[in-house]
Amino acid sequence: MTATQEPSASENPQAKPLTIAQLAELAGVSTATVSKVVNGRSEVAPETRALVEDLISRHGYRRQRRRGGPAALVELVFHALAGDYPIEIIKGVEQVAREHDLAVVVSQVQHQHVAGTGWIEGVLSRRPTGVIAVFSSLSDEQHEQLTTRGIPLVLLDPSGDPGHRVPSVGASNWSGGLSATRHLLELGHRRIGIVTGPDYALSSRARLDGYRAALDTAGVPVDPDLICRGDFLIEGGRAQAHRLLRLPDPPTAIFACNDGEAMGVYRAAHELGLRIPDDLSVIGFDDLPTIRWMIPPLTTIRQPLTEMAATAAAMLVKLAQGDPPPQSRVELGTDLVVRSSTAPPKRP
Amino acid sequence: MTATQEPSASENPQAKPLTIAQLAELAGVSTATVSKVVNGRSEVAPETRALVEDLISRHGYRRQRRRGGPAALVELVFHALAGDYPIEIIKGVEQVAREHDLAVVVSQVQHQHVAGTGWIEGVLSRRPTGVIAVFSSLSDEQHEQLTTRGIPLVLLDPSGDPGHRVPSVGASNWSGGLSATRHLLELGHRRIGIVTGPDYALSSRARLDGYRAALDTAGVPVDPDLICRGDFLIEGGRAQAHRLLRLPDPPTAIFACNDGEAMGVYRAAHELGLRIPDDLSVIGFDDLPTIRWMIPPLTTIRQPLTEMAATAAAMLVKLAQGDPPPQSRVELGTDLVVRSSTAPPKRP
Repeated sequence: MTATQEPSASENPQAKPLTIAQLAELAGVSTATVSKVVNGRSEVAPETRALVEDLISRHGYRRQRRRGGPAALVELVFHALAGDYPIEIIKGVEQVAREHDLAVVVSQVQHQHVAGTGWIEGVLSRRPTGVIAVFSSLSDEQHEQLTTRGIPLVLLDPSGDPGHRVPSVGASNWSGGLSATRHLLELGHRRIGIVTGPDYALSSRARLDGYRAALDTAGVPVDPDLICRGDFLIEGGRAQAHRLLRLPDPPTAIFACNDGEAMGVYRAAHELGLRIPDDLSVIGFDDLPTIRWMIPPLTTIRQPLTEMAATAAAMLVKLAQGDPPPQSRVELGTDLVVRSSTAPPKRP
Repeated sequence: MTATQEPSASENPQAKPLTIAQLAELAGVSTATVSKVVNGRSEVAPETRALVEDLISRHGYRRQRRRGGPAALVELVFHALAGDYPIEIIKGVEQVAREHDLAVVVSQVQHQHVAGTGWIEGVLSRRPTGVIAVFSSLSDEQHEQLTTRGIPLVLLDPSGDPGHRVPSVGASNWSGGLSATRHLLELGHRRIGIVTGPDYALSSRARLDGYRAALDTAGVPVDPDLICRGDFLIEGGRAQAHRLLRLPDPPTAIFACNDGEAMGVYRAAHELGLRIPDDLSVIGFDDLPTIRWMIPPLTTIRQPLTEMAATAAAMLVKLAQGDPPPQSRVELGTDLVVRSSTAPPKRP
């Protein structure tokens, strides 16, 4: 069963979904009002909207076949528009969308309105072919609203646990964390610090677990002092690197769980008069296009963002055609890209 | 007159535009075929399409009032999706679009198909509220196709001369070039190199002219050897900086006409063993968010990309409402942002 077929009600999985007319009768409102709720239009009182949404959620909604089907749009929604990362994603989605004559609508939920003119209403009113949510989990309510309208959803680089059987595309974060840490171990480092992402990001947890596994299999004890929680932002990388580098027994290498944090580590090292890689090795994660221009060029774990985005878009197209993907969770491989920010430690 | 009103034929400005039925009769094809051409659909033979486009161009096309009007979409088309620059633009357009319940479709013309499924056909089929073209000029033909369909167009940071009375939003590039160069002159520099953008970019020409004016008013002769043509890309900045820094009498400061080029200048300086700002001062142009994390943080000329994008979107909304903007060319101010990459020269 895919999100495009048989939007079933959670409480009555056997019940036949209702038409707009039947929903209107149950709610005691006009069919025009139900239609407005279904299509995300704003001119409906909040209580009426809640009532109709509740009925849709309990009984399901039977879509009428409409001429032309859904709009030839893919909705690409970001947690935040900042840095190179979204551009790599947009490029991948646009490439596949173009092949299927779909246009890409870009938005960010960060500034989501609280009122009825919020993001989800806009999406419902546009009736897109599907939605790709990047590094963000939709609320259960938003997910339900998409499902009941037959709009498929794919999560890309999901931040949280992609529950309720939502298809998702990510990278092999655990293996990437393992490779990053093994690279530093092979260079001879034993005091290896890590700046993670935020706790809610499963990708960060997987990278941290890969780090732990690499240390463990090398017989190097995991020192909790060397594990710092970051936020995937440059400033956070800088702050955590300062903390690590001021330890009585500081690390000789730092694994920053994304390239932005690695930029912050560079700054902290510079502020403390440490040279990279002579005094400190640094490895990042992502391989964004501009980081090869950092001085020295950053060694990093490449996750193929553009390919991941293209994969998510292709999966979405399949779902929209009523064709469930062979697997609902795809992980693309990560690679170690050695540049010039890692070297053997001075202290053995 | 604005692009949304009275799409007039170039040859017969007095003639009344024709309906689809009249165009079909003139072309000797069905109304369905004319409708397909008007709406950018692909199933029309190239010769027939050319014939109908020619008739529309010569006689004009009278749009039928359709329920709901144009789609609630703004088309944002980039020359290329790379680096921070597009993200700053998307943020500004999205902000204004959201206020007007418009969604933002993002695309790049770089990969435009040659066949009928190209960018313009997609735009015509979506019937957007309007188009914002970033750092790119549409062809005369594309512009005509938008005009005849009553789809307004605004150019943002136009690369070429915004001809045929297309509204545009840019930055005060000449003043920015002047400020950048004056900052270096005030620090005591006399040998000041410049890495420009590509020749076709008027923004680059304006920055170069500002550089010349600053030198001239300071009584410093312009040395053609110190003027290098770049391409607004990092690698180009690096290559041109190498050329400048290997001159018999090399510059003590370089004005890179965008921040990307400045990153390339940093790399070249590093490769030649020159410290910034001790041995070489560098100033950029743009003030992209990540450049404050360069080491040392880059002094630059800020152009307010997000505000420029918001202005272009607001202008487009006005045009779509049939409300011509008070001025068709808007230039937002640039500011000098002094960070740590500029200092007095060692050699006076």
